Amino acid sequence: MERWWRTGATLLFGAGLGASVNRLLSAGCREKEAERPGGEETLLGRVPVLPVPTILPGVRAADLQVSPGGSGAVMKYGFPSLANIKTRESYVTSYDPRTRTASWVIERLDPASLSGPSNRKYCDFKEDDSVHVFHRATNEDYRGSGFDRGHLAAAANHKWSQKAMQDTFYLSNVAPQNPHLNQKAWNNLEQLCRSLTKRYLNVFVCTGPLYLPRQEADGKLYVRYQVLGRNHVAVPTHFFKVLILEQGGGRGVELRSYVLPNEPIDEKIPLERFLVPIETIERASGLQFVPNIMKRTSSLQAVAATHNALQPALTAG
Amino acid sequence: MERWWRTGATLLFGAGLGASVNRLLSAGCREKEAERPGGEETLLGRVPVLPVPTILPGVRAADLQVSPGGSGAVMKYGFPSLANIKTRESYVTSYDPRTRTASWVIERLDPASLSGPSNRKYCDFKEDDSVHVFHRATNEDYRGSGFDRGHLAAAANHKWSQKAMQDTFYLSNVAPQNPHLNQKAWNNLEQLCRSLTKRYLNVFVCTGPLYLPRQEADGKLYVRYQVLGRNHVAVPTHFFKVLILEQGGGRGVELRSYVLPNEPIDEKIPLERFLVPIETIERASGLQFVPNIMKRTSSLQAVAATHNALQPALTAG
Repeated sequence: MERWWRTGATLLFGAGLGASVNRLLSAGCREKEAERPGGEETLLGRVPVLPVPTILPGVRAADLQVSPGGSGAVMKYGFPSLANIKTRESYVTSYDPRTRTASWVIERLDPASLSGPSNRKYCDFKEDDSVHVFHRATNEDYRGSGFDRGHLAAAANHKWSQKAMQDTFYLSNVAPQNPHLNQKAWNNLEQLCRSLTKRYLNVFVCTGPLYLPRQEADGKLYVRYQVLGRNHVAVPTHFFKVLILEQGGGRGVELRSYVLPNEPIDEKIPLERFLVPIETIERASGLQFVPNIMKRTSSLQAVAATHNALQPALTAG
Repeated sequence: MERWWRTGATLLFGAGLGASVNRLLSAGCREKEAERPGGEETLLGRVPVLPVPTILPGVRAADLQVSPGGSGAVMKYGFPSLANIKTRESYVTSYDPRTRTASWVIERLDPASLSGPSNRKYCDFKEDDSVHVFHRATNEDYRGSGFDRGHLAAAANHKWSQKAMQDTFYLSNVAPQNPHLNQKAWNNLEQLCRSLTKRYLNVFVCTGPLYLPRQEADGKLYVRYQVLGRNHVAVPTHFFKVLILEQGGGRGVELRSYVLPNEPIDEKIPLERFLVPIETIERASGLQFVPNIMKRTSSLQAVAATHNALQPALTAG
C-alpha cells in the first residue's frame, strides 16, 4: 500500500521550516537550494507536507460567505499567469493561442454552485469567438480524432446557473482528452473535487494541460504531442489539477496538486497516487501558484505522496 | 529559377482587393473564406503581394526621424502578443515561461543603431534574473548540448551602445540553435536585415521560435522538439523573422516574413526561398502582426514567394 509523508505542520510566515521539507517537495526536480532567489519565491520550498486527510471537520452553512458564481471570487488566490485572461460566468481562464487551448482554468466550488436545475442536455460545445479565428479550436478539429472534448472546468460543477454551465462548453475550456481517462479516472477526480466542498469552506480548482518531455532512444529528452484538425489543436501529454482548499475557522489553506497522463488509467489506482509536489506543476507549466496563495494566507499545507504513479515521467532529464 | 508573385498593388483601406490575393496568401493554410470574421481581422487577407525588390530608393538622412535605441520606438507597429513583456535597451520581448525562451523579440534598426564602438568581446551570455528561477534558462542548460545560444535580437544590430549590445546576451533573448544555421544562413539573414537599413527609413525586426508539426508514420501530425538541460529549454523546430520595412516619403510599409528550419541550410539557397505568407507565422506562433500594423499605415505590401523551401512542413495537416 501507499506510504504517505507524515510531515504535517502549519507554516507560519518567517518560520524557517527549511531544508528538509524543501527537499521532500523537490523530490521530482533537481533544483539546487543555492539557485533559489530570496524573498517570496522561496516560500514554495517551505510548504509543509500533510498526509491525505481521511476525516476533516464539517463546515457550517454560516461559514459559506461567498455566493456561487461571480468570477471575481475566483481571483482570491491570484492567477497563475496573466496572459490572455478571459472571465466567464463560471470560471476565469488564460488562453494559449499557440496550442488552441487554455493554459489554465480556475473555478470556485461550494455546495451552492453544485446544486441547481441546470442541465447539460441544453449545452453544446461551441467555438470561442473571442479568440482570433487563426488561433481557435473548432468542433470539426475534434471530429473523428479519437479524442473527447474534455472539459477543464467541469460542467457538473456549475449547476447553479444554465449560463454558467453553458460557459464551460466553450472550446477554449476544452482540451483533447483520451475518452477512457475523461470518462473514468478524470471524472472521479472531478467528483472528488465536488465532494471536498462538504469538508472545506471553499474549493478552488485550477486545471490545465501539460506537455511533458520524455526520454527517447537517443537518450535525449523530447516533448512530443499530437495536434488535431486543420487548426492544429494540441493534445496535452498530461493534465494537472491544483486544489486550493480553504479551511473554516481561519485554519488556513490546504493544497493538493495532481498530474494525470492523457491516457487510460486503471480506476483501481487510487487518485492519491497522482499527487505531485506543486513545484513539479509550476516548473512544467510555466505557471506560479504558491507566491500568490501566500499573499492571502499565513498557513499553507500541501498534501503529497512519496511515490506516485508518474514518477518516471516527472523526473525525466 | 524562382517564380515570384507579381501581384504588386498598394492597399487602400476599404478597397476590397479581395479573394484572389487572399487565396495567394493563404496558400500555405486551408482557412475557408467563410470562416473569417468581419472587420480588422480580415485585413490579413487583403495584403497584396510584391516581388522581391532589387532596387529601392535611397533614404535621405533627414528622413531618419527616430534616434537609435529607445525601446518606445519599437512599439510603433504594436506587439504581436501581450504576455510577459520585457523592455530592454535594444529590444522589447515577450517571454514564454514554459519553453524558457522568448515568444518574440522586436528591435528597430537604422544606420545609427548599427554603428558605434561597442564590442561583443565584452559581452557574456547571462541568465535573466527577471524570470523566476523555475522558468529560466541557464548557460549550464546549453553546455554540451550541441546547440548554439542563438541570439533572437542580434548583437551586431546594436553597436550604438555597449549596454544595448549586452542586453542582447540575456538568455531570454536566446534560443537553442543549430550551430551551422546560426553561423551561416541565419547570420546571412541578420546581415540582410542590417543592409535593408540603407533602403528603408526604419527596419523593424521581429524574431521568434516556432514549434511546427510534422506528419509521422501513422499519418497523424505531431509537434516534437528536444528540451535541453535540467531546465528543459525548448529547442525550436524553426525560427521566424518578420521584417516591417518603413518606406520614406509616406510610401507605407513593406512586410517580409521568413521561416527557417533549425537545421543546417545550404547557403546557396537564396533567402527568398524562405519567405512565407505572414498568415503562416501568425497561425503557427499564436501571434498577430497584421492587425497592429494596419493601425499605423494605410499601405501595407507583402513580399512573398510562390514556392518556398519549407512548403511541406508549412502545409502539413
